[in-house]
Amino acid sequence: MTTVAFVGLGAMGLPMALNLLAEGFDVRGCDVNEQARERLEAAGGVFKSSPSAAAENADVLVLMVVNAKQVEQVLFESQALDALKPGATVMVMATCAQAAVQAIAARVEASARHYIDAPVSGGVVGAESGGLTIMVACPKALFEANQAVLKVMGERIFHVGERAGQGAMVKTINQLLCGVHIAVAAEAFAMAEKAGIELDTLLEIMSGSAASSWMLQNRGPRMLQAQPPVTSAVDIFVKDLGIVLQTGQDLKAVAPIAAAAHQMYIASSARGEGKVDDSQIIRTYRALNQGPDAEESSK
Amino acid sequence: MTTVAFVGLGAMGLPMALNLLAEGFDVRGCDVNEQARERLEAAGGVFKSSPSAAAENADVLVLMVVNAKQVEQVLFESQALDALKPGATVMVMATCAQAAVQAIAARVEASARHYIDAPVSGGVVGAESGGLTIMVACPKALFEANQAVLKVMGERIFHVGERAGQGAMVKTINQLLCGVHIAVAAEAFAMAEKAGIELDTLLEIMSGSAASSWMLQNRGPRMLQAQPPVTSAVDIFVKDLGIVLQTGQDLKAVAPIAAAAHQMYIASSARGEGKVDDSQIIRTYRALNQGPDAEESSK
Repeated sequence: MTTVAFVGLGAMGLPMALNLLAEGFDVRGCDVNEQARERLEAAGGVFKSSPSAAAENADVLVLMVVNAKQVEQVLFESQALDALKPGATVMVMATCAQAAVQAIAARVEASARHYIDAPVSGGVVGAESGGLTIMVACPKALFEANQAVLKVMGERIFHVGERAGQGAMVKTINQLLCGVHIAVAAEAFAMAEKAGIELDTLLEIMSGSAASSWMLQNRGPRMLQAQPPVTSAVDIFVKDLGIVLQTGQDLKAVAPIAAAAHQMYIASSARGEGKVDDSQIIRTYRALNQGPDAEESSK
Repeated sequence: MTTVAFVGLGAMGLPMALNLLAEGFDVRGCDVNEQARERLEAAGGVFKSSPSAAAENADVLVLMVVNAKQVEQVLFESQALDALKPGATVMVMATCAQAAVQAIAARVEASARHYIDAPVSGGVVGAESGGLTIMVACPKALFEANQAVLKVMGERIFHVGERAGQGAMVKTINQLLCGVHIAVAAEAFAMAEKAGIELDTLLEIMSGSAASSWMLQNRGPRMLQAQPPVTSAVDIFVKDLGIVLQTGQDLKAVAPIAAAAHQMYIASSARGEGKVDDSQIIRTYRALNQGPDAEESSK
C-alpha cells in the first residue's frame, strides 16, 4: 500500500486527500489549521500535527499549500524533507513560479528524493470530483511510477516535460488566460451595464457566441449576483498574475494585457475586497464607471 | 414574395445573399466590387450597379458593408434611402458604433422608412451556414415582421431592445471580448514559446481547461501555423476595438484591458500585417519578445 503524506488540507487539498483515502491509500494529513482533522479522521486518515511527522515513512509527500514560500517552509524549515525516507517522492501541486520550482527541485534532488512538479487546474469542483487537470513535469519513468496517485486526483493528466519548472510554466500560462478572461468579462459587463443593456440577456448571448470563454460561463452568472459564494478569491489572482508578470520579466516576454488585468485585481484587493469571489472584480469597474454611490447601491 | 436589396457582397455578405436566394427571396445585390456578380447571377439573383438601383421597389434593404461610414454613403450619398419605397425597412448588419447607429436610424425614420439595428457575430463560417448570431434592436412588431429574413441568415436571433443602437452596443461588447480573447491567447502562447514549452501540447491542455475560450479553440491552431488562411484580418480588430474604446469614452466606461489589446492590433497593422489573419497578432509578440530575426525565421 502506498503511503501518502498530504500537507495543505484547504478547500482543494482536503477533498483531494479524501479521494486518496477512498481509493485505499494510507493518508497522513497535516495543516496548520486543525479544522480538517475531523473529516480526515472520519474518512480513515491520520492527522499529524507537524509536516515532518506526516512525512515519516511516506512514499509520496504531496504539497497542496498556497505558494512557493509555504512549500519551502514545509520542506526545509519544518524539515519534512529530512523526515522523508531516501528515494521517496515530493509532489508539489501548489501554484508556484517556474524559478522557485527549479530552486526547490534542485534542493530536493540533492537530498536523494525525487521531485514531481505537478500544478493543477480545475478549482474546488475539480478537486472534489477527482476531475482536475494536472500539468506534470518530471522524468517520464517517475511520471509512470506515480500514475496511481495522479489518477485519483486528476482526469486530464499531461506530461508536459522532463524538467521541474515546466509544469509550473504551463500553469502560469493557464493562470494568465484565466485571470484575464475573468477581468475582461467584468470589463465588458460593466460597460454594458452603463449603456443600459440587460445583463441576463447579454450573458446568454455571449455564452453562446464567439465571445464566450470557460470563465465567462462560470463566473458570468456570479458577476450578476451581489454577494455570491466565494469559490476563488480576488487575492488568488493578485498572486497568480503577479507570478505571470514576474515570469515574463525573468524570461523577457511581454504581457501587456495580463498587466492591465493585474492592476484591476490589485485595485479590488486595495478596496478591501481581496477575500470576496473573484467575479466581484466587476465592483471595481462599477466604482470607476459609476462612482462610489452607484457601487454601494448595487450591494 | 419579399424583395431584398442586399448591399455589400463581401466574404460574409455574398453567402448571406445566396442563402436568401436559396430560400426563395427575390434578391437584388450590389457591391462596388463586381467580383460577386457571377455567383449572385448563377444563383438566380440580380446584380445592380448602384445601391439606389438595388433599393428600388425593395421591401427590405440589407446593408452588410464594412462600417458606419459606408452605411451613410450607401443610404445618403448614393441615395438608396430615397429609392426605397415608403414603409420599406432598412436593416443594418454591419458593425457600427452605437452613436453612429442612433444618428443614421433617426434620418431613416424621418424619411418614413423603418430601421432595424441588427449586427451579427459568427464570421464567414456562420454567414455560409446561416448560423449567425444576430443582435436585433427595433420595435418588437418590426422584429416579428422580419423573422423570415432574419431566420435565413441566423440561428440565434436575439431581440435585445426597442431602440436602434442597442444591437450595436451588444455587438460592441461582443467584439470587446473577442478581440481581447484572441490577443491574450497570442500573449500566452508567445510567453510559453519563449519558455520552451511545446505549443501543440499547450494548446491541447488550454483548450480543455478553465483557460479555454471560443477564440482560443478557433484561432489557437492557426496561431501555430506560419501562414494560415485569412478568415478575419487584423485590421477588423483595429477598427472594432477602436469602436469599443470610443463607445467607452462616450459612455464614460473604462476598458483598460481592451485598450492594451487594441495597442497590439495597431502594432500588428503598423508592422504591415493588417491584412493577415488576426491569429498572426502572435507575430507582434514574437517581434517584441525575440527581436526581428527570430520573427523573420518563424515565417
